[in-house]
Amino acid sequence: MSSSGTAPAYRRLSVDERRTQLIGAALGLFAHNPPEDVSLDDVAATAGVSRPLVYRYFPGGKQQLYEAALRSAADELEQCFAEAQTGPLTRRLVRALERYLAFVDEHDAGFMALLQGGSVVQTSRTHAIVDEVRRAAADQILFHLGFQPEYEAGRPDSNAGRPGTKAGPRLRMTVSTWITVVEAASLMWLDEGKQPPVAELRDWLLDHFVALLMASATRDAETARIVRHALDLEESDGPVGELARRMLPVVGDKGHLLEARGDL
Amino acid sequence: MSSSGTAPAYRRLSVDERRTQLIGAALGLFAHNPPEDVSLDDVAATAGVSRPLVYRYFPGGKQQLYEAALRSAADELEQCFAEAQTGPLTRRLVRALERYLAFVDEHDAGFMALLQGGSVVQTSRTHAIVDEVRRAAADQILFHLGFQPEYEAGRPDSNAGRPGTKAGPRLRMTVSTWITVVEAASLMWLDEGKQPPVAELRDWLLDHFVALLMASATRDAETARIVRHALDLEESDGPVGELARRMLPVVGDKGHLLEARGDL
Repeated sequence: MSSSGTAPAYRRLSVDERRTQLIGAALGLFAHNPPEDVSLDDVAATAGVSRPLVYRYFPGGKQQLYEAALRSAADELEQCFAEAQTGPLTRRLVRALERYLAFVDEHDAGFMALLQGGSVVQTSRTHAIVDEVRRAAADQILFHLGFQPEYEAGRPDSNAGRPGTKAGPRLRMTVSTWITVVEAASLMWLDEGKQPPVAELRDWLLDHFVALLMASATRDAETARIVRHALDLEESDGPVGELARRMLPVVGDKGHLLEARGDL
Repeated sequence: MSSSGTAPAYRRLSVDERRTQLIGAALGLFAHNPPEDVSLDDVAATAGVSRPLVYRYFPGGKQQLYEAALRSAADELEQCFAEAQTGPLTRRLVRALERYLAFVDEHDAGFMALLQGGSVVQTSRTHAIVDEVRRAAADQILFHLGFQPEYEAGRPDSNAGRPGTKAGPRLRMTVSTWITVVEAASLMWLDEGKQPPVAELRDWLLDHFVALLMASATRDAETARIVRHALDLEESDGPVGELARRMLPVVGDKGHLLEARGDL
């Protein structure tokens, strides 16, 4: 470890580079193994450094490395829903879902261990990071529905919602519920050995978004206004048109359900 | 503690009665307080017994009492979805939801602590109990959709499904997803100080069940058959008819979405 002119066995990294490298090694290991099966020696070996060096950067050991890796994964996940505010809403959601599901695919074991709970590395801090990702995803979707994200309160909003106002409780509940659906379905998908194919899962989740939003729109004026605006931008060969056409044979001859009640 | 003829200060209970009483006291405390805030002394005081007596029944202390209370709560929750197999499906689900939401209301703090995670009393055993409740609820709903519960494989099934067969993966995923929605919405409801009123939450969850099932039916023949059978039993003034009529003004003039594509 002298600073003389002889070439070191490994490239010297800056403090930030070394930290990033160690977090990357930890994230790779935690992504594909339950936290119980990852040791500090594994992280050191993967990064090609000594165990004491890992401890110098992460004195809190495995728990601190786990939280740093989770923080890094959370930042990546939060970016999944960032998307330009143009075109039909369902097209934007398809792209966001594709990024999210690719993340789930690439971090399968870690995603399951984190969200199924019961792991020793889980603390109120790791729960707070998971909740933050959920909130950020909900904020992004509400942004695409025309509401200003809370963290960008100063930014003018050019979309359909009421600029500077917060979505109402029913719309927020609908969006948060769908995030839960995406998470739960992702876990089931991993549990079923990544079946059905990811494109089917994506389309099914998108159908569910449309269905949940439509159902909520029937009871909430704000959601109804947002939905009607979003539907104007949808194309007949897009996911909503396809869903509507596939729905017809399912409800085809059940016209009795639409008959007005005699007492109305 | 002599067995002479003098009346004891408390009624003598059998071993089973005493155990049940202690679990009842623990459940009452764990229902309304985070597990961190419940001590063995609290349980002893609530049951009107000494701390050593509690330890005699639960040598594992607070953790063992928590798991016994959770076991007892799980048994109660699993009963929520037990319902006669007659009448429209939505009527049965309304009753099941009312029982479930009443349970959530009565065990608010404990329900939140259990499902939000991060609590010291959570172990792989408590997670297994929670998962068992979810599976039992899904089994019950599939039973009402005409599938035989796995634990009653020998029982003849008189309903619409294929007797003795298991629901397919897409239908199971839809039902499990809805259970997740119910759980997540219940947590949000508690978090919002039990707003909106519980009847609104119930109706919203029922709408979501119908919407999720209908959306899945458009992509899965088995689900479509089940849905069509269930719709036959629905009444026009029931929840499905109401939902369909409320949907009309939302989609009213969006007929462009139903137009067939030129290339079909």
